[in-house]
Amino acid sequence: MYLHTELLINEIAVDEPDPAAANALQEGLGGQFGEMRTMMQYLFQSINFRGDVKSKPYKDLLQGVGTEEISHVELIGTTISRLLDGSPAYQGRKNDPVDKPGARGATPLSIALDHSNIHHYLVGAQGALPVDAAGNPWSGSYVYNSGNLVLDLLYNLMLESTGRLQKCRIYEMTDNKTARSTIAYLIVRDQAHENAFAKALESLGVDWGKVLPIPKTNAERFPEVKKLVDRGLQSVQYTFSADNLSEADKLYRGASPSNDGTELTTDVMPQGFPMSISPERKEEFSPGLDPELLALIQATAEQEIRIADSPGN
Amino acid sequence: MYLHTELLINEIAVDEPDPAAANALQEGLGGQFGEMRTMMQYLFQSINFRGDVKSKPYKDLLQGVGTEEISHVELIGTTISRLLDGSPAYQGRKNDPVDKPGARGATPLSIALDHSNIHHYLVGAQGALPVDAAGNPWSGSYVYNSGNLVLDLLYNLMLESTGRLQKCRIYEMTDNKTARSTIAYLIVRDQAHENAFAKALESLGVDWGKVLPIPKTNAERFPEVKKLVDRGLQSVQYTFSADNLSEADKLYRGASPSNDGTELTTDVMPQGFPMSISPERKEEFSPGLDPELLALIQATAEQEIRIADSPGN
Amino acid sequence: MYLHTELLINEIAVDEPDPAAANALQEGLGGQFGEMRTMMQYLFQSINFRGDVKSKPYKDLLQGVGTEEISHVELIGTTISRLLDGSPAYQGRKNDPVDKPGARGATPLSIALDHSNIHHYLVGAQGALPVDAAGNPWSGSYVYNSGNLVLDLLYNLMLESTGRLQKCRIYEMTDNKTARSTIAYLIVRDQAHENAFAKALESLGVDWGKVLPIPKTNAERFPEVKKLVDRGLQSVQYTFSADNLSEADKLYRGASPSNDGTELTTDVMPQGFPMSISPERKEEFSPGLDPELLALIQATAEQEIRIADSPGN
Amino acid sequence: MYLHTELLINEIAVDEPDPAAANALQEGLGGQFGEMRTMMQYLFQSINFRGDVKSKPYKDLLQGVGTEEISHVELIGTTISRLLDGSPAYQGRKNDPVDKPGARGATPLSIALDHSNIHHYLVGAQGALPVDAAGNPWSGSYVYNSGNLVLDLLYNLMLESTGRLQKCRIYEMTDNKTARSTIAYLIVRDQAHENAFAKALESLGVDWGKVLPIPKTNAERFPEVKKLVDRGLQSVQYTFSADNLSEADKLYRGASPSNDGTELTTDVMPQGFPMSISPERKEEFSPGLDPELLALIQATAEQEIRIADSPGN
Amino acid sequence: MYLHTELLINEIAVDEPDPAAANALQEGLGGQFGEMRTMMQYLFQSINFRGDVKSKPYKDLLQGVGTEEISHVELIGTTISRLLDGSPAYQGRKNDPVDKPGARGATPLSIALDHSNIHHYLVGAQGALPVDAAGNPWSGSYVYNSGNLVLDLLYNLMLESTGRLQKCRIYEMTDNKTARSTIAYLIVRDQAHENAFAKALESLGVDWGKVLPIPKTNAERFPEVKKLVDRGLQSVQYTFSADNLSEADKLYRGASPSNDGTELTTDVMPQGFPMSISPERKEEFSPGLDPELLALIQATAEQEIRIADSPGN
Amino acid sequence: MYLHTELLINEIAVDEPDPAAANALQEGLGGQFGEMRTMMQYLFQSINFRGDVKSKPYKDLLQGVGTEEISHVELIGTTISRLLDGSPAYQGRKNDPVDKPGARGATPLSIALDHSNIHHYLVGAQGALPVDAAGNPWSGSYVYNSGNLVLDLLYNLMLESTGRLQKCRIYEMTDNKTARSTIAYLIVRDQAHENAFAKALESLGVDWGKVLPIPKTNAERFPEVKKLVDRGLQSVQYTFSADNLSEADKLYRGASPSNDGTELTTDVMPQGFPMSISPERKEEFSPGLDPELLALIQATAEQEIRIADSPGN
Repeated sequence: MYLHTELLINEIAVDEPDPAAANALQEGLGGQFGEMRTMMQYLFQSINFRGDVKSKPYKDLLQGVGTEEISHVELIGTTISRLLDGSPAYQGRKNDPVDKPGARGATPLSIALDHSNIHHYLVGAQGALPVDAAGNPWSGSYVYNSGNLVLDLLYNLMLESTGRLQKCRIYEMTDNKTARSTIAYLIVRDQAHENAFAKALESLGVDWGKVLPIPKTNAERFPEVKKLVDRGLQSVQYTFSADNLSEADKLYRGASPSNDGTELTTDVMPQGFPMSISPERKEEFSPGLDPELLALIQATAEQEIRIADSPGN
Repeated sequence: MYLHTELLINEIAVDEPDPAAANALQEGLGGQFGEMRTMMQYLFQSINFRGDVKSKPYKDLLQGVGTEEISHVELIGTTISRLLDGSPAYQGRKNDPVDKPGARGATPLSIALDHSNIHHYLVGAQGALPVDAAGNPWSGSYVYNSGNLVLDLLYNLMLESTGRLQKCRIYEMTDNKTARSTIAYLIVRDQAHENAFAKALESLGVDWGKVLPIPKTNAERFPEVKKLVDRGLQSVQYTFSADNLSEADKLYRGASPSNDGTELTTDVMPQGFPMSISPERKEEFSPGLDPELLALIQATAEQEIRIADSPGN
Repeated sequence: MYLHTELLINEIAVDEPDPAAANALQEGLGGQFGEMRTMMQYLFQSINFRGDVKSKPYKDLLQGVGTEEISHVELIGTTISRLLDGSPAYQGRKNDPVDKPGARGATPLSIALDHSNIHHYLVGAQGALPVDAAGNPWSGSYVYNSGNLVLDLLYNLMLESTGRLQKCRIYEMTDNKTARSTIAYLIVRDQAHENAFAKALESLGVDWGKVLPIPKTNAERFPEVKKLVDRGLQSVQYTFSADNLSEADKLYRGASPSNDGTELTTDVMPQGFPMSISPERKEEFSPGLDPELLALIQATAEQEIRIADSPGN
Repeated sequence: MYLHTELLINEIAVDEPDPAAANALQEGLGGQFGEMRTMMQYLFQSINFRGDVKSKPYKDLLQGVGTEEISHVELIGTTISRLLDGSPAYQGRKNDPVDKPGARGATPLSIALDHSNIHHYLVGAQGALPVDAAGNPWSGSYVYNSGNLVLDLLYNLMLESTGRLQKCRIYEMTDNKTARSTIAYLIVRDQAHENAFAKALESLGVDWGKVLPIPKTNAERFPEVKKLVDRGLQSVQYTFSADNLSEADKLYRGASPSNDGTELTTDVMPQGFPMSISPERKEEFSPGLDPELLALIQATAEQEIRIADSPGN
Repeated sequence: MYLHTELLINEIAVDEPDPAAANALQEGLGGQFGEMRTMMQYLFQSINFRGDVKSKPYKDLLQGVGTEEISHVELIGTTISRLLDGSPAYQGRKNDPVDKPGARGATPLSIALDHSNIHHYLVGAQGALPVDAAGNPWSGSYVYNSGNLVLDLLYNLMLESTGRLQKCRIYEMTDNKTARSTIAYLIVRDQAHENAFAKALESLGVDWGKVLPIPKTNAERFPEVKKLVDRGLQSVQYTFSADNLSEADKLYRGASPSNDGTELTTDVMPQGFPMSISPERKEEFSPGLDPELLALIQATAEQEIRIADSPGN
Repeated sequence: MYLHTELLINEIAVDEPDPAAANALQEGLGGQFGEMRTMMQYLFQSINFRGDVKSKPYKDLLQGVGTEEISHVELIGTTISRLLDGSPAYQGRKNDPVDKPGARGATPLSIALDHSNIHHYLVGAQGALPVDAAGNPWSGSYVYNSGNLVLDLLYNLMLESTGRLQKCRIYEMTDNKTARSTIAYLIVRDQAHENAFAKALESLGVDWGKVLPIPKTNAERFPEVKKLVDRGLQSVQYTFSADNLSEADKLYRGASPSNDGTELTTDVMPQGFPMSISPERKEEFSPGLDPELLALIQATAEQEIRIADSPGN
């Protein structure tokens, strides 16, 4: 069973809307090597896991990383949503009343015609979609779960490294601060997960020599990444274990296979950052409530107060 | 952020392996109206939610149901895995040494050639797959999130009702107890979610009359369902809110729109049932560890004990 | 614009339910070379047609065949629906009360687990689906419309011939009379359409020699086909033109390119055969109306009578 | 059976070519909530319909709306074709001889490289494609036909509302008159179909309160829409019934559920507008006939005249 | 550039037709980890390869394995074709005149209705298809080519190991000699390719310890495999280099990473085995030539002899 | 079996990078009518070929054209790779140090956000992908192999003609010399393959009159094409037969069906042009080797020299 807490796993920096950056980030959300895929792959591997009781640390490692990936889906989805929110009004037309839906035949959504993925405005309402940066819907055929422990770990190591490679490329595509705050965080956490699967394979006898991390990039080149690496975030594994039964720490310990001189450590979860609700966008008819319907919602809210205030509560 | 606890949301009854039932349940896991879809749809709707502060109960309702669906994915995935586990050895060949991978040219996996989805044995290792009962991989194009609140709620009501309809049909396809324990539970919870979205639409002025629940089936016909309905499980909404900030209870209260005379109530989460690890299946090379690799795992476990026993710990 | 008349383009023979035959026929409905594809391909070719006024006969030929294909979709869809209808109760369990949905834990839909496409029972309610015989959904990528007249005609000739080839193979897979009455009709009409596109290419200078029809089968081998060929149905082209403006007859005339000694002729449409409504299937919750909802429908019907009887009508 | 008449269901306004608008309209043609989908969904629901004789009005409603959707496919397909036709020559290069295919190494199709969907020029010949605005081919998996009457009606209501929502968004993306004339018409007709399915659910006891129409937009904001609403086009249901046997009018009567004060009425079909044939586009090799092949077509035309003039005709 | 020689890379043993085995082998041909995928992946990796001149051995290794995979596609495709060929007539009906297409209404293809993939008979003519064992068409999205050398090698190692794992499972599904002769050969060659990519990673510093080969199976359990391993076929790398410029031998040398005590060696290509042409299957209308068309082919053949015999040749 | 030689089938002209042209060429590589499809279609048709010994020329024709298509995949893939290589640094920013990966937060890959297919930079490393120009992955469902000889030849003729039509359109989209050198070559070779299949159908009695070639374009309009046509390259069929056993020359002889006055001739293979290795691209982390890993490769190369120089070699 899973629980949710109203906190984001990392803080999203504030910057202007940027639909092109939003679209690039879609690869990290719904792409073949994005967060929806890692999340689903590890959850299936954990559900179908085989072994005796001594192998529980491997199952717990998969479960822990898989649970973190749900929060990554939440983080990158929210980031995409913020990069899109208000973008039709942004490009040099800041004072235009573009939030009004088509008043007098206006074209407040004309931006959609030549910006990345038209579905961000036409199918969604300036929000994240379960597709990649080229518009392909996420597919269950991405999930790899052979049932063979060595193969599954090897695939996971390759998967995290490819995710990290793609995010490094996305970093180089945009300097939007909103986009980069999330991309930098995921580059570092992907490295933590590389470490996790590399370490699990080390426990089975593989010596990785100098090939890790993949890609072989220095954090110094990416300032936002460097800040997080300096805090050692690439060498912590969260268990997200509400009952603290995870044995993943048996595998995630000792020197980092990334050859950066750090020691691996585990923790339950990070501190988290507050979430918010996106504003109404009239040109999208979202949420699309007119005064009558809003009044009904208000009535529900007021009834709530009355009930809370009533004697006996 | 999400947390995981090592408990299943419902107990899975013990019965013989049954790959045909396992395959039917795949529709409930990876089908167009299955649990992976409801989970992803509600998580996207929550991430992209728009409105003012008074609309938070609607967002929280989506977030709460979405979080429960992750646990449903875990439950139905585990159920499929158990229905498949050991099935090659089961059909009248119980005493055969089928766990040995093809010793002397034997065919321990011959069952795969004419049972439902060959991928259950060939691609997976007698485990659940992210596909539907006809073998189609899950697709991101299933997710509906228009951003229009009325439409999203209407779709969700239809989605839960269709899920419930399909599960009622699956119930009629098999009497395997393992399969039915999970199917019955999901029929009841789908009704709870029907109630949730119907009630949210009621708050916007819709009167459902007598059409709910859909399908209009009497629980008496499905004994396993009746037991759960008698406990009122169709009228409880869990928030799965670790910080208890959910306001979903503002919407999920009052008389059930299912016309069954119950009052709707909310709770944080159910009690849960313990999980276990599936046994090794040699004919699948899963987990595929030979004595040398097993010794390395054993060494890791023993090192753990030494560390735990060492002074200072 | 299109009009509909409540008549089937051919009569469907009565026989027992046969889900395996139904599934084979799905290739003719939703397959890559089935009726949904020919329909869509010709409608797109007609919509996007380019040329001067003298080329109108070619556009009209495409429009006419395309309109006939909508009626073929209706015919083969209805045939599949009849082959599936009641099939769960049919196999040796005729007297079972299988129409009741799972009363007392029964499994009236157990047939679905090992018959062709489980979706016929689980997703649909014993009805036709827009998929092929292997369960693949129909795809817009099937439609070919290059805009080059010679190429489009060449493709269409190949398309009709492949459709005819596949239907000849389906004929050999089943002797169910319901299935064969429709398959035989479509074999003959596919030949008529082969003739249409071959003749159009003849008007551009191609001489087909002895290669037509494809496949080179003698109707004598397929008795149901022979009956229709004896009536000359393979040499008639219907225009389905409500305003009789079609000029397709300029192309569809003279000796048949199928080398069978007939002359090609045109007509507006065939006579047609009455349609009916399929019965309720309770085990599918279809239409799923309980007594209360049925009473509402009854009330609507009676109100209708009152209105019809009221003075002034 | 279906008949075709050489009339468009609405008039298409004349304006300049606009490939970006054409691409946005593709969502309305081949998108998940576009006209190909509504057409196919209702035709399948009608073919597979279950019920007793009193339920015929529901089947007829589905059949009538489904038949109208074929004409909508024709309308929007033709509109897209017109928006694309001649677009390579349009953008500031009006006097260029761009219709000539690659004479002396020229690049008359260079527009294709950076305009929306390159397939409009490369795969099609400046014509409509069976894909959505992001280039995804139409899929049979879109079609929903559960067999449960309440669910099918509920889905259809949501489907029409989503189609209307997306078309309102497209309206706001372009002010091209060709595009808007068709979009405005479809916004109004989608509302008529919303009314149809909402009314059918009313007959089963649902009271929609104030939530319809969805989206809750005032026609005043969209001048082209307002003109059609002023004519009451959102409250008429056409039967397109050639034999006038449709009983859809039993359901489509009384006050509009859209709360606009109108009464619902039925009619057979609208008046219609003449169709035309698109001109040759040499840079696309469409239709690709050289003088020799044109002479053969001319010969066919003349032969026609001779036959018509011959004695006995 | 590529050349073809009319030889199969391995001999296919003779046995009875077996459509179920044929279908299982489809995973090895058109599956996500089958030969079409390895072929395409390595050809793309070779085409897009980046590096300086010293990295040529890595490119040549990819090119050499990729070229071998084309011959594997040929081998497994031919094997599937032979397993299907004549299967409709085989099952206890050996003396039936099943080669005749539906004479007098017979059903010579009835086997298709309940055997694995109906498309083997309905779409193909008892021949191999580019699909997997569950009927999914091969997809370009399978191809992995990140451009990062370490990642590409890591993926390739995982890919070959998964291919080998799946073929071991197929071996256990059938004892048909035709199927096993090819499966056994591919198990051994997949191990050779595992060695190739593992060795290339060794050259970059990775030490695989005891984890290879994957799966950790002993050849002794699979007699047909053991025979090939005894010949050392798992430790030879063919270059298939017509101009002998390949430098792959710089990487493929020294002790095998599979820990089997062998030394790795390279060779240009194996000896090969003669190919043949499949017989006509009348019930499939394949090749579908009637006496007139056969006479035309005969005339072509005789003309050839005359030309060959004519003076001056 | 297949052999490879390190030569390209045609020379690729040198010009500036051009990602838009690269993307258009993707249709010719991974499109529904591109080289991956022709290659796979003919290889499957050859593998599954049916007939007696006299029909060998038809099988050999398919095998020969199919083998040539593998070299076409290599040619067009390499062309796309060259058009992309270095493109991020090209557009007016030639002196920028863009090859450095994200130094100090720079955005060397910003070009990816608004150029054709972002996957060329994000998923691949400025290299060819197995997708079409709209980003759709290649699909096995494209392959047509009915087993009926006339139909397969007819489809192949249409397929080559459509490929040629699309390449003529691509020619008109760009004047980049790199792109045009390959496009022109493929236009001519597609015509050669049109001739091959048209001629094979001629041998079965079809007379093509004046309709070939399709499209009916004059080479004079495309200067790069004219040069090749003047050399008669459209009338040569290569066998690519390493053992010279091909009998394709029995079919490919006599007057060209393209009505251009040439005689058809056969040859084994063209002369070929040297290949090269693409340079490192640091901003893509491709090949991603740091000094330590490069030193290991260098060590491997030097060891090679030592071994080559050692006595006894």
